Amino acid sequence: MIVLSAPSGAGKTTIFRAILEKDPQISYSVSETTRPCRNGEVNGKDYFFVTPEHFQHHIETGYFAEWAIVHHHYYGTPRQYIQQQLDQGFDVLLDIDVQGARQIRQVYPEGVFIFIVPPSIQVLEERLRARKTDTEAAIRHRIEMATEELSHIDDYQYLVINDQLPQAIAETHAIIQAERCRRTRSLFSIQDLLPVS
Amino acid sequence: MIVLSAPSGAGKTTIFRAILEKDPQISYSVSETTRPCRNGEVNGKDYFFVTPEHFQHHIETGYFAEWAIVHHHYYGTPRQYIQQQLDQGFDVLLDIDVQGARQIRQVYPEGVFIFIVPPSIQVLEERLRARKTDTEAAIRHRIEMATEELSHIDDYQYLVINDQLPQAIAETHAIIQAERCRRTRSLFSIQDLLPVS
Repeated sequence: MIVLSAPSGAGKTTIFRAILEKDPQISYSVSETTRPCRNGEVNGKDYFFVTPEHFQHHIETGYFAEWAIVHHHYYGTPRQYIQQQLDQGFDVLLDIDVQGARQIRQVYPEGVFIFIVPPSIQVLEERLRARKTDTEAAIRHRIEMATEELSHIDDYQYLVINDQLPQAIAETHAIIQAERCRRTRSLFSIQDLLPVS
Repeated sequence: MIVLSAPSGAGKTTIFRAILEKDPQISYSVSETTRPCRNGEVNGKDYFFVTPEHFQHHIETGYFAEWAIVHHHYYGTPRQYIQQQLDQGFDVLLDIDVQGARQIRQVYPEGVFIFIVPPSIQVLEERLRARKTDTEAAIRHRIEMATEELSHIDDYQYLVINDQLPQAIAETHAIIQAERCRRTRSLFSIQDLLPVS
């Protein structure tokens, strides 16, 4: 279980997609959200875009491994799908916020938690403006939120500073590869090494 | 501080050299040894080849950060040089055995400890024979030692199985890159992110 969190505009989604393309051993979970579909997003691929009533029903039936309210919209990760992927031996990559990460940590304490940060708040602001998907008020709100989210950095094991995108992608992927080599995760046993007697 | 250990024949030295070539941020320490120089090795580059008397003197004067007896020969890592490299901001890579690693862990508990294992004892034996540097008795001794060394795996945070060399090199390098992103090692501070007010 690998969790990526970041303030919006830090480049998380770009890194997320690059990692998925690089590594066939990683699976991802399509989240449900009540926020409107952005230009270029596809229902069922980027998110399942659902109504608030539909989302509320899923909260009540325990459908989510985590859910959170971010920028006035609901986001949730379906529990059953990620467990299936883990059971099949995939690493599951989740793109969720600090509130969701806290819930996932309770269910999967052995997970790998990575926080992606922009090199500065100025850069973050520039990136949000370049995206041209938000109003000025929404940008101000996202920056306030970013400052708040950054205060949760201590909940994460790894920090990736997204200054140069290729470097940030390489670092994020290195973290995933390294975690697979942890002795405590390794399926390797000394018995495998010794000759059969 | 990054420590690589492995039974001889596991491919540690090849991986060690590949990592040093890849990553200019990594420095290494030339060890002292009392064992004879092998074909192709260079004094002062691969090892400092010294007499047992010289080595004994260095033990007594506290010259070594760690030293150990491996396959009837002495090996030691000079303390001052590695500390200088660390102080200058380099990551220092040490190629040492399980006994030496234990001593380094006491001095540098925040170090990264990686154990490289061959895919099987049979493969290890084939590799040792292919090397053509050892007598039959020496090969038997190395295999006995390997079995003993493998029992110290639990002292290491990471295991790299050297089945395919390029993969093993990539994994070892990923571990080093990932460890640099650990929040607890990061020089990054939230203060750096926020606008100067």
